[in-house]
Amino acid sequence: MTTSKTRGGNFFEDFEVGHVFQHAVPRTVTEGDMAVYIALTGDRRPLHCSREFARSLGFEREVVHDLLVFHIVFGRAVPEVSLNSPANLGYADVRFLTPVYSGDTLHGETEVIGRRETSRKDVGIVWVHTRGYNQRDEPVLQFYRWAMVNKRDPGASSGADDAPELPAQVSVDHLFIPPQLDLSRFDPVVTGGEAFWEDYEPGERIVHPQGLTIENAEHQSATRLYQNNSRVHFNEMLQRKSKLGTRIIYGGHIISMANIISQEGLENVIRILAFNAGSHANPTIGGDTLFAWTEVLERIDLGRPDAGALRLRLVGVKNLDPNEEDIPLRVADADSGREQYHPNVVLDLDYTVLMPKHSSRASLHGGQAG
Amino acid sequence: MTTSKTRGGNFFEDFEVGHVFQHAVPRTVTEGDMAVYIALTGDRRPLHCSREFARSLGFEREVVHDLLVFHIVFGRAVPEVSLNSPANLGYADVRFLTPVYSGDTLHGETEVIGRRETSRKDVGIVWVHTRGYNQRDEPVLQFYRWAMVNKRDPGASSGADDAPELPAQVSVDHLFIPPQLDLSRFDPVVTGGEAFWEDYEPGERIVHPQGLTIENAEHQSATRLYQNNSRVHFNEMLQRKSKLGTRIIYGGHIISMANIISQEGLENVIRILAFNAGSHANPTIGGDTLFAWTEVLERIDLGRPDAGALRLRLVGVKNLDPNEEDIPLRVADADSGREQYHPNVVLDLDYTVLMPKHSSRASLHGGQAG
Amino acid sequence: MTTSKTRGGNFFEDFEVGHVFQHAVPRTVTEGDMAVYIALTGDRRPLHCSREFARSLGFEREVVHDLLVFHIVFGRAVPEVSLNSPANLGYADVRFLTPVYSGDTLHGETEVIGRRETSRKDVGIVWVHTRGYNQRDEPVLQFYRWAMVNKRDPGASSGADDAPELPAQVSVDHLFIPPQLDLSRFDPVVTGGEAFWEDYEPGERIVHPQGLTIENAEHQSATRLYQNNSRVHFNEMLQRKSKLGTRIIYGGHIISMANIISQEGLENVIRILAFNAGSHANPTIGGDTLFAWTEVLERIDLGRPDAGALRLRLVGVKNLDPNEEDIPLRVADADSGREQYHPNVVLDLDYTVLMPKHSSRASLHGGQAG
Repeated sequence: MTTSKTRGGNFFEDFEVGHVFQHAVPRTVTEGDMAVYIALTGDRRPLHCSREFARSLGFEREVVHDLLVFHIVFGRAVPEVSLNSPANLGYADVRFLTPVYSGDTLHGETEVIGRRETSRKDVGIVWVHTRGYNQRDEPVLQFYRWAMVNKRDPGASSGADDAPELPAQVSVDHLFIPPQLDLSRFDPVVTGGEAFWEDYEPGERIVHPQGLTIENAEHQSATRLYQNNSRVHFNEMLQRKSKLGTRIIYGGHIISMANIISQEGLENVIRILAFNAGSHANPTIGGDTLFAWTEVLERIDLGRPDAGALRLRLVGVKNLDPNEEDIPLRVADADSGREQYHPNVVLDLDYTVLMPKHSSRASLHGGQAG
Repeated sequence: MTTSKTRGGNFFEDFEVGHVFQHAVPRTVTEGDMAVYIALTGDRRPLHCSREFARSLGFEREVVHDLLVFHIVFGRAVPEVSLNSPANLGYADVRFLTPVYSGDTLHGETEVIGRRETSRKDVGIVWVHTRGYNQRDEPVLQFYRWAMVNKRDPGASSGADDAPELPAQVSVDHLFIPPQLDLSRFDPVVTGGEAFWEDYEPGERIVHPQGLTIENAEHQSATRLYQNNSRVHFNEMLQRKSKLGTRIIYGGHIISMANIISQEGLENVIRILAFNAGSHANPTIGGDTLFAWTEVLERIDLGRPDAGALRLRLVGVKNLDPNEEDIPLRVADADSGREQYHPNVVLDLDYTVLMPKHSSRASLHGGQAG
Repeated sequence: MTTSKTRGGNFFEDFEVGHVFQHAVPRTVTEGDMAVYIALTGDRRPLHCSREFARSLGFEREVVHDLLVFHIVFGRAVPEVSLNSPANLGYADVRFLTPVYSGDTLHGETEVIGRRETSRKDVGIVWVHTRGYNQRDEPVLQFYRWAMVNKRDPGASSGADDAPELPAQVSVDHLFIPPQLDLSRFDPVVTGGEAFWEDYEPGERIVHPQGLTIENAEHQSATRLYQNNSRVHFNEMLQRKSKLGTRIIYGGHIISMANIISQEGLENVIRILAFNAGSHANPTIGGDTLFAWTEVLERIDLGRPDAGALRLRLVGVKNLDPNEEDIPLRVADADSGREQYHPNVVLDLDYTVLMPKHSSRASLHGGQAG
C-alpha cells in the first residue's frame, strides 16, 4: 500500500488571494551559521565578524549578514510557495529591518497578493508578500516576489488576472536605519575602505576584480544551510531531464557571491537597506565562474550628517571577465530581434545600501579618506 | 631510521572478549557542529534548530540531532574498532538515551562481546558494544555492531566461534523517552506536519519525493566533522586499488541523508528512539544520487496519551528514483540464484521513532491535523 | 564612466622599509569557526575539541587550533602584502604566543623589513614581519615571511638590496609556554597517544599512514574561512591562463592537512610553539592526495620536568604514498643537474612542538605509556 504523507507543495490552483501561510521550522541563527556563511562566501564585512567593531557602531555584537537573514526567511517559504515553481521571476520592495544576532530565532509568513494566467497553459504567475520576524515578533525582513508556479491541472484556466502594482523602488521613508547606529567612531582602517558616500558618483561603474568559481558541493551546502529544500538544486537525476541538464544554483546564492565580489570597491557599506528590483537573468551551474560589476544609480541623502544611502545596480556575469572585456547587459535575440539579457549575465539587482559620509568622522584618522 | 609510532588499529587477533577499550578524543559538541550538520544534510526538524520550539517541549534548548550524536560516538570508536575493517556488517539494539545539548562533551567506550572465524582466512567477525556518555557520565547512546576485521596473520585460525545472541528489536521497555518531554504545547504548524501517530498504518509505504546528489567534498566534510578517520573515505589513491575503485561514503552519512529525505512525510517525528537492525546493503560513492522510502512496520503504544512509537523501515536507494519506478528490495543473483539486495539498494534500516498522538493536542490549532 | 574604487593590492614599488600596515577586518573567532575547521581538516587534538580536557590542562576552555590562528592572521595581511604576489617564498621565526579562545577577536599589522631586486625584471622580493593580536592587544602570533611581489612598472629597477638576516631557528628562550599550562593531570588515554617526549629520537622518521584527497570545494571553503581573498585559489578562469593551469591550493591549507595527517604518531603534542623555516616546495591542486612523514630533528629540553620541545621536519608529498615507496626529498634537475625538491614534495616545514614528558604523569594510569 503506497500512500502519500507528503503534501508536495502548492500548485497554482492552491493560491488564494488574501490567504496567509504560516511557515514551519523556525530557525535559531547561531555563531555556527555565521561561520559557515563566511566559509561558503568569504564575507569580509567587519560588522559581521568583529564583535568590537560591531559594538563600536552601537550594535550588541556581530550582526548576522543581511543576506543570510534573507536566505533563511526565503528558505522558510519554499515548501508553501515555490516547491512547484520552475522559476522565480522577480523581487520588489525588499526591506531589511531589525538587525539579527546570534541566538535570535527567525520565523516567517507569506500572504498571497495576486495571481495571473500566462500564455502557457501549464503555469501561472503568483505574487506573494513574505515577512520574517524574530522571536519577539519584530520584523526583520519583508519582500514581494513573484514566481511561475505549476498548475495541478495543466489544461484548466482560472481566468485569474489580478497582478498587483508594486513600487519600482523602496521609497526613502521606508528605508530602515537601525536606531542604535552610531557612526561617530566609524574607523575605515577596520573596513579597509577609502571611499565614502560623497565619493560615489551616479553613472560610475566599478568593475570588481575578483572571480569566484562555484562548486556543486558549495552551493548545495549553502542552500541546505538555509534549509531551502527545493528539488532543483540537489537532485542531479531529476535535473538531467530538465532543459538545463544539471542542478541549478539557488539564485540567492548568486546574490550572496556577487555581493561578496562587490565588497572590493564598496568596503564601507554598513548594511543593505533594500532591494528595489531584482532579476535572475540566466541560470548558473556548478563549475561556473562568477564576476560582477556595480553601477552607481543614485546618491540618496537621508537628511542625517553621518550617513547616506547609495542606490546601486549589481550585475553578475558568468564565465566572462568584465575586467578584460566589456559585456553588454542586453543583446538582441538572433531570431526575434528582441532585446534580452546577454546569455552570460546571471544577476541584475537594483539595491540600496547605507554608507557613511566623510562628515561622520570629524575627529578621526586624518589621511585615510579617499 | 624509519620507525612506527602509529598503532595502525587493532587486528582480529587483538580483540579479546570482555576487554573494554576507552576511546580517545572526547568531543564538546557546539552550535558550530550543529550548523555544519545542517549545511551538510539540510535537516529541518525544529527540535534541532529552534530554541523556542525545543523549550516549548520541555527541553533546555535546541537538541543535538540524534544522528549527529550517533556519528560522534561512532567516530570515537573507529581507531580501536574499525580502522582495519573492510566492512561494517550490522547494528542491533541501538538505543538513543539522554538528550545532548551544545556544550556537552561526549566520550565513549567499547566492549568486545564476541568473535567468529569466517570461511575467509584473512578476516574474522568481531561483535562489540559501544557506549557513549556525556561529561556527567550519563549515557547518551549505546549500540551493538559487528564488523569484518582483518587478521594480522591472514593464515592463522583462532577457532573463535562465540557470536553473541542479539535482540531482533529494541524492546519497548528499553525505549528511552526523555522525562522532561511535554507535548501539551506541541504545535504542528511549527513542524509543517499533518500526520500523527494514529495516521500511520502498518504496511503503509511512503515514497519520499526528494533526491540528493552527494559530492565527495560533502561526505568527506561530514565524516571529518565526526572525526572518523577511517582511510577508505578520504584516500583516493588507496581506494583506486580497491574493488570499488574509489572512495566509499561513510555508511553513517547515508543514514543521515536518507533520514533527511524521509522528513517529508514524517515531519512530526520528535526523536529517534532506537535502531532495531540496520544494514549497509551496497556502497555509495561521490556523485551518487540518493532516494528513500519508508515502510511502516508497527505502531507501538507506549501507554501514554501524548505520544506513541512507530517502527519504520527506511530503505535508501542510489541512482534510481522510487517515485518513478518500483524497486524491489531483493533480487535473485544471476549466478547463484540466491536472493540478495537489489544492487541499487544501499540502506535497509529498521528503526523506531517517537511521534505525537492527536490526543496530545487537546486544545490546539483546530484544523491543522491531517 | 568606469572608475576604480579598488586598490588592487600593493606592488613592489609600494613597499617602503619601516612602513607598518594596519590590516583591516578584525575577526572574532567563534565555536562556529572551530567546528568548520574540524569539518575541513579532521583535527583530532582534544585540546581543541574537549572542554574538559582543556580545563584539565589549565586552559579556560577549548583552545583555538594554532594553525587556525595562523591562517586567520595570515588572511588579514593578504590585501596589503600578497594580493600581487605570485609566490610565497618562505617563513622564519614564526612564534605561537597567547592562546586564543572562542570569542577572542584577532587583528594584525605587518612591517616591511626588507626589499631586494631579483634577476627577473618584473618582480622583486619583499620581507615582512606580521604580528597578530587579540582584543586586549596581547600578541597571539608573529612571523617573518618573504614573498615575490609583482612590480607596477615591470622594467624599472630600484636597486633595492636590503634583505634582512633572519634566524634559522626560533631560539629556545623565544618559545612561549602558556603560563597556565599544568600537565599534572595530563591523561594519554584522552589523546590516544603512547609516545612521550623521551620516546622520540633525533634521526627517527615516522611515516604517517593516512592519505587525504583534497577537493576544490574543500580548500576554497577553508581559504574563505580565513577570509584570504587571494585570486589564485578561487578563480578558475584566471588560473587557466597560468602556468599551473588551474586553481592552486592555499599553501597554508596544505600545512593544516599535513599537520592533521601527522597526528597519527604525534598524538601527545600539546601545541605548536614555532615554525623555524618552511617552504611550499611545489603547488597542489584540487584532486591531489596528500601524504606526509615526520623526521625528528632535535629533542629540546626546556628545563622543566613536565614537558619538552621537539623540533620536527614535516614533509608533505602529493600523489605518492610514502608508506609504499621511499620518496627522496630532493632530486637532480634533468637539465641543470641542480638539486631541487622532488616534484611530488609539496611541503618542507621545520617546526617545534611542545610534548609532555613521561615524568609529567607521576601518579597516573599505569600501563598507558609506550
